[in-house]
Amino acid sequence: MNDNAVYLLGADGGGTSCRVRLSTIEGQILGEGRSGSANVRLGVDNAYAEILKATDAALHQAGLDRSVLSRTYAGFGLAGAVDEARRASVRDFPHPFASVAIETDAHTACLGAHGGKPGGILILGTGSCGVYQNAGQFDVIGGWGFMISDQGSGAWLGLNLVRQAMLALDGVIEQTPLSQAVLARFDNSHSQVLDWSEQARPRDYGAFAPLVLQFAAEQDSLALRLLQQCGEDAGELLARLQRLGARRVCLMGGLSEPLRPWLPAALLPLLCAPVGDAMDGALLLALGLLNVRES
Amino acid sequence: MNDNAVYLLGADGGGTSCRVRLSTIEGQILGEGRSGSANVRLGVDNAYAEILKATDAALHQAGLDRSVLSRTYAGFGLAGAVDEARRASVRDFPHPFASVAIETDAHTACLGAHGGKPGGILILGTGSCGVYQNAGQFDVIGGWGFMISDQGSGAWLGLNLVRQAMLALDGVIEQTPLSQAVLARFDNSHSQVLDWSEQARPRDYGAFAPLVLQFAAEQDSLALRLLQQCGEDAGELLARLQRLGARRVCLMGGLSEPLRPWLPAALLPLLCAPVGDAMDGALLLALGLLNVRES
Repeated sequence: MNDNAVYLLGADGGGTSCRVRLSTIEGQILGEGRSGSANVRLGVDNAYAEILKATDAALHQAGLDRSVLSRTYAGFGLAGAVDEARRASVRDFPHPFASVAIETDAHTACLGAHGGKPGGILILGTGSCGVYQNAGQFDVIGGWGFMISDQGSGAWLGLNLVRQAMLALDGVIEQTPLSQAVLARFDNSHSQVLDWSEQARPRDYGAFAPLVLQFAAEQDSLALRLLQQCGEDAGELLARLQRLGARRVCLMGGLSEPLRPWLPAALLPLLCAPVGDAMDGALLLALGLLNVRES
Repeated sequence: MNDNAVYLLGADGGGTSCRVRLSTIEGQILGEGRSGSANVRLGVDNAYAEILKATDAALHQAGLDRSVLSRTYAGFGLAGAVDEARRASVRDFPHPFASVAIETDAHTACLGAHGGKPGGILILGTGSCGVYQNAGQFDVIGGWGFMISDQGSGAWLGLNLVRQAMLALDGVIEQTPLSQAVLARFDNSHSQVLDWSEQARPRDYGAFAPLVLQFAAEQDSLALRLLQQCGEDAGELLARLQRLGARRVCLMGGLSEPLRPWLPAALLPLLCAPVGDAMDGALLLALGLLNVRES
């Protein structure tokens, strides 16, 4: 092992977990680690605690210790790092790395998906968000929170389902096996749905997405209608990425594969498989730091 | 003044104010009063405090004092009195009246609108709710809270507007003068809308309804699209009231008049003017108590 070797570290910190990958500057992967959410909204100290927990696991796998971190260039893609003030708070926090570059996890996912080349991603999970990157210029569409954004997402699919189920309960629209299945979970009681909805988070709404998919497979008319709307909504985001210049877009997130048949057919030729993941994108960010230093 | 006279009191306790009307059993109005919200969700003691405040004002206008309340039969239509447990808590609370009957404010509004005869109401305000009453049997549709219900309401009109404005800000859909007017209120800043939305209540969304109506008058394409959807949604509720048996429906709430041109034309013959208000409906409830006692 070269005692003066320089290392790269890429961290992908989403809403539920933080994953870290350590590599040589030539790109050889040395180790990986995982920890809890490093969302910047939960505090910068918390984000670093999780990143370092995952980093320790990666170092252990690599047979290295924290002494190498002063020669390690780190790229972070963190949920919640949406404005320059939040990103600066991460860069300025006392840390053991040689240097830190930070973007949102969506940015690094986009960098990783296209290996740093121009291209877009469309995340269709609990929330939704599109990113197009070209020559370091990032355009972000959507992802501004459940209430005012996130069209085409699992959370809105679930919310629309619950709203339609309530209308079915009142006889405003026809019952279907899907609406009956939803209402059965609440004993067909208005007040049980009401009580649940007062506590429900986006992920609770999103948890209904598999039920919609299951009933769509059985040609349930409500399920088909909800998925068609969801696909049109996601298609609008995809079309916007195309207008921004994207010639290749990678779909990501738990709803992306099941929603694919519901996307506008004309946009399907845009879709491609990612060449790397969000940690690869974060490693590209880190490599950028090194290039800046050496140039 | 007959010292043994029996009186009727009707209270309409909505989300913003409580209004009370005192009358003879023959229906002669003696006085009225007004106070703050008597929503049962804010506590039964609070509801009675507001009802008694308004009652004192009505007694003062009638030249009477609280000594007559033991000979006064009261009917309450109170927001939030949605289940038997809540209604029982109001009936069982220590009160100065001879007897108390309670329903939701929507129930008494429906009774008052048709003078106790069969008929329906459709409330289109910040929220939405339909009621059909026939021979003391009430069917209620909608009104189960902002997130999972309230289609065709001002709050959902405003929410849909803000969501579309965010899509316009990201270039997903085209800007219109309306979306520009909304975004100008937030300095065209994603984070300003985001910060606002994290605090926004249904009434805050509903406050955008007049802006939609204003731009619709100028043929703004987004405003027209939003109102068409809102009218279709409200029309579904109206159609359901018709299927339940309603031959006459009174529209109520701040959005009801402006939304009328957007309702399905086939349903317009259902609409009629109310013969009385929610306090009249509460007085009918009170009169029912008296009839039960005497029968």
